[in-house]
Amino acid sequence: MSSAQLPNGKSVMENTQVLRDEDYLTAVLSEQLPPVMVESSSAPMTSSEGGHCEVKVNGEEKKTREIVLGRNVHTTCLAVTEPETDDESTGDKEADMASVLARYRITLVERTKHHLGYPYNLDFDYGALTRLQHFSINNLGDPFIESNYGVHSRQFEVGVLDWFARLWEIEKNEYWGYITNCGTEGNLHGIIVGREVLPDGILYASRESHYSVFKAARMYRMECVKVDTLVTGEIDCADFKTKLLANKEKPAIINVNIGTTVKGAVDDLDLVIQSLEESGFSHDRFYIHCDGALFGLMMPFVKRAPKVTFKKPIGSVSVSGHKFVGCPMPCGVQLTRLEHINALSRNVEYLASRDATIMGSRNGHAPIFLWYTLNRKGYKGFQKDVQKCLRNAHYLKGRLRQAGISAMLNELSSTVVFERPQDEEFVRRWQLACEGNMAHVVVMPNVTIEKLDDFLNELMEGRSLWYNDDKVQPPCLAADIGNGNCFCPLHK
Amino acid sequence: MSSAQLPNGKSVMENTQVLRDEDYLTAVLSEQLPPVMVESSSAPMTSSEGGHCEVKVNGEEKKTREIVLGRNVHTTCLAVTEPETDDESTGDKEADMASVLARYRITLVERTKHHLGYPYNLDFDYGALTRLQHFSINNLGDPFIESNYGVHSRQFEVGVLDWFARLWEIEKNEYWGYITNCGTEGNLHGIIVGREVLPDGILYASRESHYSVFKAARMYRMECVKVDTLVTGEIDCADFKTKLLANKEKPAIINVNIGTTVKGAVDDLDLVIQSLEESGFSHDRFYIHCDGALFGLMMPFVKRAPKVTFKKPIGSVSVSGHKFVGCPMPCGVQLTRLEHINALSRNVEYLASRDATIMGSRNGHAPIFLWYTLNRKGYKGFQKDVQKCLRNAHYLKGRLRQAGISAMLNELSSTVVFERPQDEEFVRRWQLACEGNMAHVVVMPNVTIEKLDDFLNELMEGRSLWYNDDKVQPPCLAADIGNGNCFCPLHK
Repeated sequence: MSSAQLPNGKSVMENTQVLRDEDYLTAVLSEQLPPVMVESSSAPMTSSEGGHCEVKVNGEEKKTREIVLGRNVHTTCLAVTEPETDDESTGDKEADMASVLARYRITLVERTKHHLGYPYNLDFDYGALTRLQHFSINNLGDPFIESNYGVHSRQFEVGVLDWFARLWEIEKNEYWGYITNCGTEGNLHGIIVGREVLPDGILYASRESHYSVFKAARMYRMECVKVDTLVTGEIDCADFKTKLLANKEKPAIINVNIGTTVKGAVDDLDLVIQSLEESGFSHDRFYIHCDGALFGLMMPFVKRAPKVTFKKPIGSVSVSGHKFVGCPMPCGVQLTRLEHINALSRNVEYLASRDATIMGSRNGHAPIFLWYTLNRKGYKGFQKDVQKCLRNAHYLKGRLRQAGISAMLNELSSTVVFERPQDEEFVRRWQLACEGNMAHVVVMPNVTIEKLDDFLNELMEGRSLWYNDDKVQPPCLAADIGNGNCFCPLHK
Repeated sequence: MSSAQLPNGKSVMENTQVLRDEDYLTAVLSEQLPPVMVESSSAPMTSSEGGHCEVKVNGEEKKTREIVLGRNVHTTCLAVTEPETDDESTGDKEADMASVLARYRITLVERTKHHLGYPYNLDFDYGALTRLQHFSINNLGDPFIESNYGVHSRQFEVGVLDWFARLWEIEKNEYWGYITNCGTEGNLHGIIVGREVLPDGILYASRESHYSVFKAARMYRMECVKVDTLVTGEIDCADFKTKLLANKEKPAIINVNIGTTVKGAVDDLDLVIQSLEESGFSHDRFYIHCDGALFGLMMPFVKRAPKVTFKKPIGSVSVSGHKFVGCPMPCGVQLTRLEHINALSRNVEYLASRDATIMGSRNGHAPIFLWYTLNRKGYKGFQKDVQKCLRNAHYLKGRLRQAGISAMLNELSSTVVFERPQDEEFVRRWQLACEGNMAHVVVMPNVTIEKLDDFLNELMEGRSLWYNDDKVQPPCLAADIGNGNCFCPLHK
């Protein structure tokens, strides 16, 4: 029996009950592989994509952090097996693989249904694009420079970039950009452009910035200064100014968060610029990269939100494509000023063949997905989506607080932060991203009131079990989200 | 009329003739957008993904290089347009988009058919995976550490990694790796691991290495020494030793090419290691990254090829997934020693949440494509493919030389280098990658004898026009591929 075969010999259609990954994988794997990565359970790790460098607990940084994990992946993986010589005639192998894939699909359906913690809009229909899926579409190199490789989608990519250029108010002949593999690539690109423009610049980022920002500092061998945050998660501009003044002799490269990963906090871009100016930094001595991974595409549709625009002295903006837009694969949009890229490109040593992207080969399908959604929804469609998300987020926060559960929702955000559920199985089931005592739900267009109600009902049920005597108390979130938002026994 | 509408009002099925991109785009675009990127025609650029930092002409490095290009992409792009208020009722927008996509598909079919210059295997059938395409599959972070995001494909990813670990002879509990977005990400990762292991190491790479290696040096602020190459394109180990001895006080990080981009040359790994040892570098003072973008997966099946294995003192190996394997999106496999990653991961500042990948979010579809192909083909299937490629490459070289055309084929390679065709339209039609006077065809499993014959016939026809009098002569390739392989008027 190949490792991919179902043990009961039934076809997948006869096995329609939804299994948890573990059951399913144990079921299909006949062979137990040797365990590996024994150290992993002691390694620092959070479950969130946007895990942060440190978790502050009572103002102290914990050096080792909780770890949500450690199943051994080698024991649950789907091994690749050599085809038998008679496979082609019997069709066994083909059938085995089909059954693995069909069962995997069932898991995907189930997992997609119970999903609240990550900012991925899972509500999309790309049926119209199915017939393009089997082409090897590759936009290698610079989107504005033709490659001889003909199977590309540059015409869609540049159409998408032009749309974002209009959104962020920069002329077609003044911007440069490309469609990236993810938000991290956008940050890596924005920060390297900043460093090349200001080679001895110091990188400033609030401590609630995405971890890729600090990874970039290390990769690029840049001096990095972490700035404190307010309880909302926004950058603390008083602390920022203090740190700027202490480093006046060097230029500043600043990562501004348009929506932090955990709290969905939006840094005040205008206040950041004002702080720089008041600290004596002229516009040629700073470079601002706006990390708009999630909210970069929601902010423009929210009244009172600080506007992200190239009319302000910013150097680059990035946004994820698989988050608010929704896309079956991670991707992002990165825009910067053409003058910066032209300056880079004159440095032949650095960017041979004028490939100013981070990656060489680039997925040509992603631009088509984005082009398709932008065309279908348009500004108005996104506006509707944003309204729905904000409304549903407020509903969730309201119901949590009504039930006496610590919760916070930033004004410009659809990320609801609340007490971390006691039961890891519950956390896993709803795919919540957690950090310290906090969990969050990111309300995306596919998160309906019904789904939130289901979630709330299960949460209430769980809490009545977890906290049914006085031995276990709900966690205190005062340090994370402020006394006013904390409903723990001490603060309520 | 929306910009996406066909001007003749016909449905796409009525417009079945194959148009060139330009015609097609002019036809669908009603609006001419303002020109942009006026500088691009003067910027250095080659058409090849693997453009190199310099082109050597008679031993002199040219500072500005030829440029294959510069159509203005803004004028040919497919603009995103706002839906009209009545679009939903009329269905016009939907119909427009469908027609754009259908015509784009025709172009893809045509472009896929005429394709010789890039090492992408376009011969695959992933029909079985169609039903998975609309899930937002994301393997964020480390493949061996579970994330709470449930819609992932880690079980496939680790299955693929295990297969490569077996290929490159490293135990399951001794390796770490992940599926990357492309060959460049593999190089970026291998080199950063090398730098973190040997922080003051100098990066050595032959001048025919992929440009991403030199990009990495710049990004990571590493000292970089370029090593000369032999006429085959292999690293010149005599020069390597000279340069090692001149920098004995610093550790060495070496990029070894398992197939260079232009000539398909395979650096002699054993000789590289021997050179290091003979120059007094103990194993803890060097780190070798093997860039196996293309041939990393072909070499194991070629007799007499220097073996890439973790039994030798190497630190990491990378290979592309969309090249020899064939995959509709760029991807790659990166493997390194677990001890290096554990060392990195202890540095909390660097790799928060123990995400030792370069990217955060990662495409979860790519591992499934790779898993599927590895399972179906197995070692034996790849062996057959490699044999076919080598055989067809020899056929091509033989016929070129028979016709008196300068050509070279390295022993372990399926990349045939030959004189650059005079006519850029011909180059574009066959999607040849060119550098200086060289063009190349990379014989992949989808390149049949019939396709090569078509190509050869067209080439002969073209040459009889280009060189029909003595005014224009075929280019000299002696400096590129050696006197013996050059059939120019001077050397034949």
